Amino acid sequence: MTIGIYGLGRFGSFWAENLAKHFSVKGYSRSSIRPVPPGVLRVEEDEIFTCDTLILCNSISSMPEVLARAADRLRPGTLVMDTCSVKMYPLQLMAQRLPETVYILGTHPMFGPDSAAGGLSGRPMILCPVRGTEELFQAWEDRFAALGLTIYRMTPEEHDREAAETQGITHFIGRVLDDLNLRPSDIATLGYTRLLQIRGQTCNDPLQLYLDLQRFNPYTGGIRARLRDAIEKEMKRLDAEYPSP
Amino acid sequence: MTIGIYGLGRFGSFWAENLAKHFSVKGYSRSSIRPVPPGVLRVEEDEIFTCDTLILCNSISSMPEVLARAADRLRPGTLVMDTCSVKMYPLQLMAQRLPETVYILGTHPMFGPDSAAGGLSGRPMILCPVRGTEELFQAWEDRFAALGLTIYRMTPEEHDREAAETQGITHFIGRVLDDLNLRPSDIATLGYTRLLQIRGQTCNDPLQLYLDLQRFNPYTGGIRARLRDAIEKEMKRLDAEYPSP
Repeated sequence: MTIGIYGLGRFGSFWAENLAKHFSVKGYSRSSIRPVPPGVLRVEEDEIFTCDTLILCNSISSMPEVLARAADRLRPGTLVMDTCSVKMYPLQLMAQRLPETVYILGTHPMFGPDSAAGGLSGRPMILCPVRGTEELFQAWEDRFAALGLTIYRMTPEEHDREAAETQGITHFIGRVLDDLNLRPSDIATLGYTRLLQIRGQTCNDPLQLYLDLQRFNPYTGGIRARLRDAIEKEMKRLDAEYPSP
Repeated sequence: MTIGIYGLGRFGSFWAENLAKHFSVKGYSRSSIRPVPPGVLRVEEDEIFTCDTLILCNSISSMPEVLARAADRLRPGTLVMDTCSVKMYPLQLMAQRLPETVYILGTHPMFGPDSAAGGLSGRPMILCPVRGTEELFQAWEDRFAALGLTIYRMTPEEHDREAAETQGITHFIGRVLDDLNLRPSDIATLGYTRLLQIRGQTCNDPLQLYLDLQRFNPYTGGIRARLRDAIEKEMKRLDAEYPSP
């Protein structure tokens, strides 16, 4: 078995490097100058599509283009996983655009180079089985669990609903804090230190991930509206309780 | 030397209990049913005002009333400290309303029962000397540092400017998250877990502290306005980048 990692950006490189400790891993990046992580063999696009297991680590918004490039070049029996931070949109596209002879397993590794800097142990990962046998899905669930990850299976809709409340709002607040340009402070309370950590961690991720999270998860818009309402409510409460000092 | 703690609310009880490990501590609460922490002697209001060192742990908004009750009953040479989370407003009041024979040291212990649950070591504390000798202020700085606290001296204005950006915005965001009623999630990312911690910790503090922080720090209003602007900016950015999926 050989795993092909399509896309060696911030997350793809991290994932490839971790998987290469246990599996044979090839990597492809459209950028020839991007470094390949230790243990990973750089290959051309044609060769990555011949791997029996292909893990897509491209951005959510590039999914239509990548699927168009992959569709006619994948062999029957290939397992294709995505790693997108939303699940309904990419899995619907994959089911529509990849040939029926190809298996599909949606994954969302809910960690990255920052949050899993101390190791993968206990970090959550979501699986959304789409097309294939239960044996195939269970085998991958077992492999990911063996890396120390905590695996949850859910439907793409369950995932997006939950992720909008958790990851979506966290990234939105992180970017808002970045706009505010909050600075470290000698007199930081523990709570403020946590705010700065949220800002640092979310803004370390590519801007494209943030934009795609907000765009392609159908539930994030509603959460953002609720956040705006909650802020207005707090502003009004303060005005009402205390017209002026 | 005997320290009198005026007010045995959430913070006053915590502070009294910690100080009682090293000093003789008396405590007063206007509520006779409030429990007195271990090592602290409960006394009446008349007696608390006879302590040579009086630490006010009442709410910011009750400061005018408490100073009115204290002013005529304090002995010459008493050192009065406050512990308010804002400094300009209460220290101005104290300087105006306490007799000239009384020394004044503003303090802001930037921790509480939650953030210092693991101990005081390394937690920050701010001192704003107002009236007294450098020897007196230095003696207290040394005593607090001996508890493991990291001490910073600053002016009340420097404090309020910095605290509005750090503590003020953290408490505001914590209350907003509470309005959103965010729930723990099995698939929480590290960032979301930190958001929940901020919500839990800030909303564990009394509502009055939150309201007083927002009201009596002259800089929090400006920060809230900047926060609202940053949210609008992010909302517009998303609308502009991605009119619809």
